Parts: sequence; structure tokens; C-alpha cells
Amino acid sequence: MTAPAIGFDADDTLWHNENIFAHVHTRYTALLARYHDAATVERTLFATEMRNLDLYGYGVKSFTLSAIETAIELSGGQIGAAEIQHLIGLGREMLAHPVELLDGAADVLADLAAAGTHRLLLITKGDLRDQQAKLARSGLASHFKAVEVVAEKDEAAYAAILRRHGIAPERFLMVGNSLKSDILPVLALGGSGVHIPYRLLWAHERVAEIPQAPGRFFELKTLRDLPEVLRAWPAASRPAAGA
Amino acid sequence: MTAPAIGFDADDTLWHNENIFAHVHTRYTALLARYHDAATVERTLFATEMRNLDLYGYGVKSFTLSAIETAIELSGGQIGAAEIQHLIGLGREMLAHPVELLDGAADVLADLAAAGTHRLLLITKGDLRDQQAKLARSGLASHFKAVEVVAEKDEAAYAAILRRHGIAPERFLMVGNSLKSDILPVLALGGSGVHIPYRLLWAHERVAEIPQAPGRFFELKTLRDLPEVLRAWPAASRPAAGA
Repeated sequence: MTAPAIGFDADDTLWHNENIFAHVHTRYTALLARYHDAATVERTLFATEMRNLDLYGYGVKSFTLSAIETAIELSGGQIGAAEIQHLIGLGREMLAHPVELLDGAADVLADLAAAGTHRLLLITKGDLRDQQAKLARSGLASHFKAVEVVAEKDEAAYAAILRRHGIAPERFLMVGNSLKSDILPVLALGGSGVHIPYRLLWAHERVAEIPQAPGRFFELKTLRDLPEVLRAWPAASRPAAGA
Repeated sequence: MTAPAIGFDADDTLWHNENIFAHVHTRYTALLARYHDAATVERTLFATEMRNLDLYGYGVKSFTLSAIETAIELSGGQIGAAEIQHLIGLGREMLAHPVELLDGAADVLADLAAAGTHRLLLITKGDLRDQQAKLARSGLASHFKAVEVVAEKDEAAYAAILRRHGIAPERFLMVGNSLKSDILPVLALGGSGVHIPYRLLWAHERVAEIPQAPGRFFELKTLRDLPEVLRAWPAASRPAAGA
């Protein structure tokens, strides 16, 4: 029997991401302030993103295209080429932004990888190249046995990953900041979830549901407390011959 | 011993793609005709794409962003919001474009899958969501044992795929329209390649090199001739217990 597996979300779980978007949103609403108030700009941008999601998917390039489209719409076509070039520049800044690890990420990942008690997977959604580039810059890549970038983090995607790696759901624990993308689909498959909220959450990721899965759902304030959860986690207490 | 494996490229190997880009390029040069001649527009757009490649990667969203940036540059900032909205629309049309299979793709894939003599993989680069959506629309998805979307098709990427699926290079054959992305890196690893040129090739994919790998490199006019190559391909002549 191989070691139980832990899946880690990336953005806002291992490194800061939503704060970069928040900063860009501030600059975006300022750029459009002469056409509309910030609340209208935010609401319209979000509506554009949701309308485009099926075609564009997640990620910075999708955001940039939706931001340009929204700027044209909200300015009644008055927005200038220089301002659109500025928006393209904001997107580029986001893509090139340094990766800033969250507190504990480097230590906890290094310790877990050294211990060899669990198979460590990185499971993230969004833009393939951007996510791989961030992982490379993070310095964490060598800790992971596999990296899975998926178009959507739903039950089907997790089921496919578990099947591909030969992981039984009851021996899989997912760590992430989004109940919707990281926790609920994994609990539904019979796996376990550790929710570590980030201080910001994109509206699209919000859910009202509170997971009900005693012994399989944990909520932490910081990654630093993950090892303590793992000591109590059922799957980890079984002998793992492959470890 | 499991069955030998065949990797299939997707765009311009299983379905038309470059013709969609070519059509959009024609409309793009027409849109910018009052600023510059077509050759200048094409040359500048290509330069923008190459400059952005490392940050953006491949795919329609990257193309759209580079096309907007180039239009602003070539018009000296005179391009209007309506024209930029038109470019966004072109990108959306490309993403939503129906998948048109190349001659033989449906038959050859169905026959190979039914025969079970080879493990069939789809190996493509570019935008994760777009590629997955095209595969879903193609009707070919069920024939593949695995789908690999990578950020770049180089030796490292192929080596990782072969390792992940436990495929020895000498039992791997890649089928694709690009010598640069589909054939040369696979030959370098000791695998085999079947090159089926498409009538159009993006400048970025052009190479001067002619592969030198007797018995491991084949050039075909159509996918319909692939079964004949497979009958002579060394790896296929070995008994494959897993087949």
C-alpha cells in the first residue's frame, strides 16, 4: 500500500494571489472613475468575467480581456488606446509578479517532503503556463510528486486525478483556501479537506454551504498547523508500506 | 509488457486550426490597412507574439492580446474602441469555432482504439481550457487513454509524459504536423515520429532541420496512411502482452 496523498491548491494557499488582483482592481476602478463609480465598475467587470468564463476559463489573460471589454462598454466606446495599452500592461505586471509565499508554506512543504509520509500533489486551476511559471519561481516544485493544472476544480476533475494516481479517496486530503474548489468536491468523493481561508476571496469562489463531514473536514488559520491535523487524520494512522 | 504508445498532436493534425488563424489574419490586416500594408502588419504582429510568448504562452487569448497591442502600436494610438472590441470578437469567434476534423482522423482513431494494439495519447500545447473544449467537441475524446496539455512541446515535456505513463521511448511514436514540436524532440529521446504536414504552418513552428532517424521517422500526406506505417514500425512487431 502506498502512502496517503495530500493535494495542495496553489494561489492563496501556498502563495499570495488575490492581493495582486485586488491591487489591480483598485487601479482599474481609478482608471474608469471618470465614467462610473467603483461599485458599478466592479459589478460590470464581474458580470463580464462570468459571461466569458465558459469560453475563456480562469487566469490573468482572461481577466485582461474581460477588463478591456468592460472598459469599452462602461466608457461608451470613449476609452482611448493608451488606456487600453495600460490595461494590457497591468495584465503583464500580474503575470510577471514575484511569487510571495504564504507564511509556513516553505517550511511545511519541505518537512513533509523530507518525511516522505505522504505523496504530495499540487492541484491548481487556471492558466497552464502561468501556473507552471509561478511554481517554478516559488522554489517549491521539487517537493511535489506531480503537478495537475485543470480547467475546473470539480468532482469530475478530482476523480480523474485520484484515478490517474491510484489514490483511494479515503486516503486523500486536499488543502486549499476555497471551499467551493478545494474542499466540497473532495468531501463529496469521500476524501478529506483542510480549509485555510485567505483574507480575500474572489466572489466567484464564494459558497454559503458549510461542509458537514466530521473527521474529514478541518479549518485552519495557517498552513503551519497542517502537521498537527495530519497526526490525527485517519488515513495517516494506517501503516503505509510504500512510505 | 504493455502495448506500445502513439501520441497524437491535435491542432492541424486531427482537426483544422491554422486555417482559422489565417482567416482571422486576413481580417486583421484589412482592419489595419489604413495604417500599414499587410506585410508590415503581419511582421509586427509576429514580433509582438514572439516578445510575449514567454509571458503569455500559446493560444487564442494570447493571440488576441498581442493583436490588440499591435493594433495600438501600428495605429500610433489612433485605433478606436470599436475596432478593439472587434478584435476581442475575433478572438471569441476563434474560441467558439466548430471543430473540423481532418480527413481520416475519425476513422483512423476509431480503428486504432478498437484494435487495442496501441495506447493512444493526445499530446497538445496551448490553452488548457480551449484544447479540452475542442477535444470534447471533436467526438474523439473516448479514443484516448490520456490527454496531456503542456505549455511547451520540448524534450523535457515529452520525457515527463513518457515517464509518467511508463512508456519506453523506443515504444513511443508521435504523430503531428510540426517537425519542431511533434517530431524532433521525440526523435532526440529515441522515439519515433510520423510527420503529416498541414497546408499552413505558423512561422514560429518552422525549422530548417530535416530529421535523420532511419526507421524512426516517417512522412505522410494523410493520417489515412498511418496504419501502414504502424504495420512496419519496430515496436509494434514485438509481442505486447498488455494489448
